[in-house]
Amino acid sequence: MAFKIGLLGLGTVGTGTVAILQDPLGRSPLLKEIEIYRVGVRSLEKTRGVDLPTGVLTTDLDSIVSDPDIDIIVELMGGLEPARSLILKAIANKKHVVTANKAVIARYGHEIYSAANEARVYVLLEAAVGGGIPIIKPLKQSLGANRIQSIMGIVNGTTNYILTQMTTEGADFGEVLAEAQKLGYAEADPSADVDGYDAADKIAILASLGFGGRVKREDVYCEGIRQVSAVDITYADKLGFVIKLLAIAEGLQGEASENLQLRVHPTLVPKDHPLANINGVYNGILVEGDPLGQVMFYGRGAGAGPTASAVVSDILNIVGILFSSEVTDDLDPLLSCVHQHYCQVTAIENLETRFYARFLCYDVPGVIGHLGMSFGNHQVSLESVVQIGFQEDCAEIVVVTHNVKEGNFRAALAEMEQLEAIKSIPSVLRVL
Amino acid sequence: MAFKIGLLGLGTVGTGTVAILQDPLGRSPLLKEIEIYRVGVRSLEKTRGVDLPTGVLTTDLDSIVSDPDIDIIVELMGGLEPARSLILKAIANKKHVVTANKAVIARYGHEIYSAANEARVYVLLEAAVGGGIPIIKPLKQSLGANRIQSIMGIVNGTTNYILTQMTTEGADFGEVLAEAQKLGYAEADPSADVDGYDAADKIAILASLGFGGRVKREDVYCEGIRQVSAVDITYADKLGFVIKLLAIAEGLQGEASENLQLRVHPTLVPKDHPLANINGVYNGILVEGDPLGQVMFYGRGAGAGPTASAVVSDILNIVGILFSSEVTDDLDPLLSCVHQHYCQVTAIENLETRFYARFLCYDVPGVIGHLGMSFGNHQVSLESVVQIGFQEDCAEIVVVTHNVKEGNFRAALAEMEQLEAIKSIPSVLRVL
Repeated sequence: MAFKIGLLGLGTVGTGTVAILQDPLGRSPLLKEIEIYRVGVRSLEKTRGVDLPTGVLTTDLDSIVSDPDIDIIVELMGGLEPARSLILKAIANKKHVVTANKAVIARYGHEIYSAANEARVYVLLEAAVGGGIPIIKPLKQSLGANRIQSIMGIVNGTTNYILTQMTTEGADFGEVLAEAQKLGYAEADPSADVDGYDAADKIAILASLGFGGRVKREDVYCEGIRQVSAVDITYADKLGFVIKLLAIAEGLQGEASENLQLRVHPTLVPKDHPLANINGVYNGILVEGDPLGQVMFYGRGAGAGPTASAVVSDILNIVGILFSSEVTDDLDPLLSCVHQHYCQVTAIENLETRFYARFLCYDVPGVIGHLGMSFGNHQVSLESVVQIGFQEDCAEIVVVTHNVKEGNFRAALAEMEQLEAIKSIPSVLRVL
Repeated sequence: MAFKIGLLGLGTVGTGTVAILQDPLGRSPLLKEIEIYRVGVRSLEKTRGVDLPTGVLTTDLDSIVSDPDIDIIVELMGGLEPARSLILKAIANKKHVVTANKAVIARYGHEIYSAANEARVYVLLEAAVGGGIPIIKPLKQSLGANRIQSIMGIVNGTTNYILTQMTTEGADFGEVLAEAQKLGYAEADPSADVDGYDAADKIAILASLGFGGRVKREDVYCEGIRQVSAVDITYADKLGFVIKLLAIAEGLQGEASENLQLRVHPTLVPKDHPLANINGVYNGILVEGDPLGQVMFYGRGAGAGPTASAVVSDILNIVGILFSSEVTDDLDPLLSCVHQHYCQVTAIENLETRFYARFLCYDVPGVIGHLGMSFGNHQVSLESVVQIGFQEDCAEIVVVTHNVKEGNFRAALAEMEQLEAIKSIPSVLRVL
């Protein structure tokens, strides 16, 4: 019995996927039940890292998603279109879908899962978050007994590499980005990574799974790492923190899906926190639930091998189901998308968190009093105020607050920007 | 549609499981499809932490496993008998089984899984290893695309707590054990934990899943932590290591299931290794595969809440399958036990690893030459030889070897024990 797959895209991950499927020795015996039946590419002329039998490669992607012989479509093209349309056509043709495409799922998940439910097919996406780290399936299948309190993670390897290098080398963002681009860890246009959009796509997907409601991608508050400076990394270190780009989904009291915080931003993480030691291109995702407590998943978040491992695990998952069960009217609710409603996401102004802010001031003794007054006026209570250095003839004062409402904190900052003693407020970062 | 479960045992984990099932708000919607139909206990008189409707509690466990109304048996009694017999009876009566019982699976897994395959039922055991950490299902379902190279972990919270306390407090094994017993982290008879048997049960199960062959429990080489002394922890620290009780399954070249290393022993772990920072009662399991690279799973490895979370996730898994598919003749091969052959396990003498040994010597300048000679005679090459302290008027010399065959290393030690300059060899530990 062989199950036929149609692969869309033969880039890095596609090639890695074919390499696994063509070399099953020592891997799951179920791999032998899978046949690479068609592979859709843009050009037949290009040299490929894998050998495929004649007739498998084609540039006619539409013919793949409508081919009645194919059981599973594996979409590894990336990007929004034509990926979205091809996925929808595959579903309309009753094909199960495996995808690594976080962007398309984060934006069109509602459309894709509604169609999949109607057609009674599975759409699996383990590779979309955390590369080879199993996180999607554990959230769907292993953690459902829990009331999830938070999911927070380092889910973008590029920015974690950049922040790690800035930390260990004391270098500035621009230098390290250029180096990362040379090494192939960052794209020529690095915006999706460094501005946090990739991490936002991923946390939207994780939140939807963990909190049992659909999530609108535009509800994710998103700040990237361009504003993080070497000097803030140094001061954070002195205060006992490392700076990481965290993607956070957090439920407040009560039914979490009605009161969800969703955000991506550089964050001061206490050095003894499990996520503080996730360095370089590694990813780490920490899930907290009741009665589970904390569990963390750690590994390489990108790269051909890890991502292909996740893609093939999804293919195996579907093959295992097809192998064992008659097609019935119902999908396994643990593997399909069962929620119809949207999570209600709290506006960032209502977020309560700790803040770190760095001030450049002309007059230190006077200014600390002014700072304290302004913060006090807005119900912002301070954990520490430290004069930590000098720059451009000004004293640098670093403030760490207790938990405060973001709106109150911003109002206090706006008031302080009017103070004569304060030259500027170069950095404002959130603290875990 | 309600699926009926019969629970065997209402201790800590059983009570935790009932608590989750009775309070589904904010958890998986599928929980509402589950009915606690019978709970088997030893005594009806005992006060319980949960309320159950009249008639649910019974002391007649045999009647539960043969009740035609029950779909899933959840075995949470622990121990070998009557757990084994009840599981087998449940299977014979075509009931799916969820168990947290690592001892019974590690010893009677072959019998239980053969019976389950014949009866076409699932036996799931997520709670048997790593408490609430999803590790069994990821190994079965998410990592099968990989050629697994190694699984190594800190899988026993009691010993990890003891070693962590010995490290942070500089205290000796006996003191810390007594304290752990007081806190409820160690049993009155601590042997299953401190002698490594519990960890050996767990690595036997993980190895079987990761390497695709059955594993005989008695093939696991097992050393506990009683021999680990505060002084070795201090010296290890100076050399850049922490001491952890690791459970290790490692494939050698070629088909891993034909050449498997299986062992539990205290190990010097380099401080920058992902497992070095797993402290206290936490567990961490590191899986390395091709093309995946390393992934690590981290969380609380025991306790009512985390373990019940894993038990309920298995129940949900089966309910999800029952919900969606007709009963056919085949089980999903990713969730059942498909291998019939046994892994061939390499004898510990043939293991190649690094060693740490501590010598008490009378005469330092002479003895280092003698040590070097004896090791050289047996093809043991040394990484470092350090005179690290004094004790009982003797010099303490610590040796760390390169990778050597265990048999050669032992032969060299036997030769050195005859040397007049050497008083004793108080510690021999393996190094990762």
